[in-house]
Amino acid sequence: MNYAHTCIRVKDLDASIKFYKEALGYQVTREKDHSDDGFKLVYLALDGDDTELELTYNIGHGAYELGDGYGHMALYSDDFEAEYARIKEAGFEVTELMGLPGEEPHYFFVTDPDGYDIEILRRD
Amino acid sequence: MNYAHTCIRVKDLDASIKFYKEALGYQVTREKDHSDDGFKLVYLALDGDDTELELTYNIGHGAYELGDGYGHMALYSDDFEAEYARIKEAGFEVTELMGLPGEEPHYFFVTDPDGYDIEILRRD
Repeated sequence: MNYAHTCIRVKDLDASIKFYKEALGYQVTREKDHSDDGFKLVYLALDGDDTELELTYNIGHGAYELGDGYGHMALYSDDFEAEYARIKEAGFEVTELMGLPGEEPHYFFVTDPDGYDIEILRRD
Repeated sequence: MNYAHTCIRVKDLDASIKFYKEALGYQVTREKDHSDDGFKLVYLALDGDDTELELTYNIGHGAYELGDGYGHMALYSDDFEAEYARIKEAGFEVTELMGLPGEEPHYFFVTDPDGYDIEILRRD
């Protein structure tokens, strides 16, 4: 078996697509429009990846309860400091640069429109 | 940027590692033991994948609130019917074979020890 995608439910499909494109460089790869059944699925991917992010949009559903179990998706960046500056400058909600205890700072989090965190990691 | 991992918080690290190994074929790739700071991180991967699953274990934390926002991770299977039979036979909690409206059944979900769903998809 091989990893295919991670799926999150979102309350505003357009806002989420805009965020994942503009903040992180995702592109829409395919869509499944099941509006007659009350939902749409939109798949996005990063350039060079054969894995996807699946956004589930349940029409008319408001905000979701995120809980405290799910952590995040993480992405590797080859151009870490520049990406951090770009994302911060563009006005997205980012943390400071962070490291685990005993490590130098090498990651940060950016928050998407629903409140999901995405970790950006400097690729070693 | 490229996808690196999906992170979930788990209440029983050994039970989760056992599940992801035995039900899905994951292997532990690396661990970060920060017990002195109250947590451990364990990374697992599927054979052939350069992406990981990160398990966060906060020592002494009980069950997590999963909410209804996070959906699932999905895995492609090349041997779909056999994997379904194997996972079901082994006693893991699985759904029936499912399809979206208008599609033939081509996926199912299996539930991990914390209640997170993992989707297994027949690779086309």
